[in-house]
Amino acid sequence: MSWEENVRKVVPYTAGEQPVKKGIIKLNTNECPYPPSPMVEAAMRRAECDDLRLYPQFPEKSKLYDTLVSYHGLDKEDIFIGVGSDDVLSMAFLTFFNSGRPVLFPDITYSFYDVWAEVYNIAYLKKPLDENFCIRKEDYMGENGGIIFPNPNAPTGALMAVDDIEEIVKANQDVVCIVDEAYIDFGGVSALPLLKKYDNLLIVRTFSKSRAMAGARIGYAVGSRKLIKYLNDVKYSVNSYTMNRMSLELGEACMQDEAYFKEICNKIIATRERSEKELTALGFTFPRSYGNFIFASHKNVRAKEIFERLKENDIYVRFWDKPRIDNYLRITIGTDEQMDALFKALKGIV
Amino acid sequence: MSWEENVRKVVPYTAGEQPVKKGIIKLNTNECPYPPSPMVEAAMRRAECDDLRLYPQFPEKSKLYDTLVSYHGLDKEDIFIGVGSDDVLSMAFLTFFNSGRPVLFPDITYSFYDVWAEVYNIAYLKKPLDENFCIRKEDYMGENGGIIFPNPNAPTGALMAVDDIEEIVKANQDVVCIVDEAYIDFGGVSALPLLKKYDNLLIVRTFSKSRAMAGARIGYAVGSRKLIKYLNDVKYSVNSYTMNRMSLELGEACMQDEAYFKEICNKIIATRERSEKELTALGFTFPRSYGNFIFASHKNVRAKEIFERLKENDIYVRFWDKPRIDNYLRITIGTDEQMDALFKALKGIV
Repeated sequence: MSWEENVRKVVPYTAGEQPVKKGIIKLNTNECPYPPSPMVEAAMRRAECDDLRLYPQFPEKSKLYDTLVSYHGLDKEDIFIGVGSDDVLSMAFLTFFNSGRPVLFPDITYSFYDVWAEVYNIAYLKKPLDENFCIRKEDYMGENGGIIFPNPNAPTGALMAVDDIEEIVKANQDVVCIVDEAYIDFGGVSALPLLKKYDNLLIVRTFSKSRAMAGARIGYAVGSRKLIKYLNDVKYSVNSYTMNRMSLELGEACMQDEAYFKEICNKIIATRERSEKELTALGFTFPRSYGNFIFASHKNVRAKEIFERLKENDIYVRFWDKPRIDNYLRITIGTDEQMDALFKALKGIV
Repeated sequence: MSWEENVRKVVPYTAGEQPVKKGIIKLNTNECPYPPSPMVEAAMRRAECDDLRLYPQFPEKSKLYDTLVSYHGLDKEDIFIGVGSDDVLSMAFLTFFNSGRPVLFPDITYSFYDVWAEVYNIAYLKKPLDENFCIRKEDYMGENGGIIFPNPNAPTGALMAVDDIEEIVKANQDVVCIVDEAYIDFGGVSALPLLKKYDNLLIVRTFSKSRAMAGARIGYAVGSRKLIKYLNDVKYSVNSYTMNRMSLELGEACMQDEAYFKEICNKIIATRERSEKELTALGFTFPRSYGNFIFASHKNVRAKEIFERLKENDIYVRFWDKPRIDNYLRITIGTDEQMDALFKALKGIV
């Protein structure tokens, strides 16, 4: 017998390319085109290197924690901080979806959900989006082991109304419902007010998109004290010190600069609206996006061809060779200059 | 039915206290008493804040990775980098101990092992150390689902000879054997040369002890290309971007300063040797330690009492109220000044 027989074998998630090459236009992983707040840079300059010899504070004891609690006007025990929202979601899958019944999520959605289900041996069922790429709330009313979806959804950008989310959460109080709000800051309406009424709702946020800090790996979840306690028990059974000292400090500095945060969100929304017009003029169609990206299909030219031709021009967008979405490109909203370069290149292709 | 019935319920690992209070003497979590290398500070000062908007490079593409490969003289695919050695070990439990047969580890050892086994539903069997707190290699020769132990062991500090480790690894080629070398740099002899002969051996290291960077959360594993590939598949099924940009950069800077690294290791070893004499004179006994700590018991005064009295004096050491070790204290080796303060306080207690 070989040790290989005892190995948990999985097909890992494939993240968007992170080319080392300089000078490319990177519209493929929904990063923020603007740098972090100057307050983050100031915090980086004054950070105490000597303190690195010590283990970090637990997130619950950090200033970042207190800041997030007061920012969202929550009770003290209602937040969980992790290494990006991926860490938070991964821990949530491990903690809450332990029933044996299938967890439900859309067929077109964040493609990490089925990977987490596979690695943790969780049964799941994908519910098809309707023909406009919208979630059908009726699909989430039967017996299940938990529910998760992003709002706005990724990679479609479609937004679900909070009333519809409430119907789902209300009808499923025997399971945990997770709303992944990674892209909520680009014009969506958050489900946060529902937390007062439902202790089975977990809302997940990230610093990687609207807060321009993907490289620092910070995400968090907000939910009832009971949910957060269970999540922390599992997290402290996996790794006691997941958050490094610098990220805790820089994240806190970031939260102090609300004006900058609003400014970059508004800039991205304005560029998205302009981009919708440009793309329409070029013959693209797309669902209305509430994210920092547009999920677009061209009437004549196949997505795969556009994807490859753009890459030759050092412009990276995202393409999935998967059912229903293999004629779509997910284009991250960059700066106005980056988008102009994209439109120029597209004119040469379509 | 309540959603709570679907929750994975676990008893988390309890880490040593991280008091916020300034001015205490902290000898309770085996941190390095010296700051990181000045090269780490320099890297911190020149780090590019703007880059934080981008996701990190994957660890395999980082300079830290290349540096570790050449430092250990390994093949390109033989290293895995994680968020401290806890992350590496947690992923290794999830990846390799998937057989249904019990995993073996000592009864007195790093107390996270049984927590990982519990959270991932892995059967395990604890093998009692002998009366001198040494691992009995014969205990690891029967059928099992994998083997893990630290060398030197924690919290005892006892070192196992590489020949004995080889006997265990050789006799268990149908399972993965993990040697946790968190404390190897304080005078121990590494099992690294065995990697050339055995593809079922994984050796785990950390930047938290001898490299004075507990706050940056960096650990790594070295093993055969096959082992590392499986480990990466699981890791990329849990979280694609676990290592933040700053930690990757600062870790690389740390590896450039071999002279400083050796200097602090030697200082800690010298202080440990002096501390052994002082503690002996005070009536303590302990196994010979190869770690940055001493696991000591007093002939007259109970460990718990000493632990509490030291804490009143703002000196924190570690105490476990557990079978076989409830009359022992694990005392981290601090600076000479910190140890002198400890001895002075102990004189008043014993």
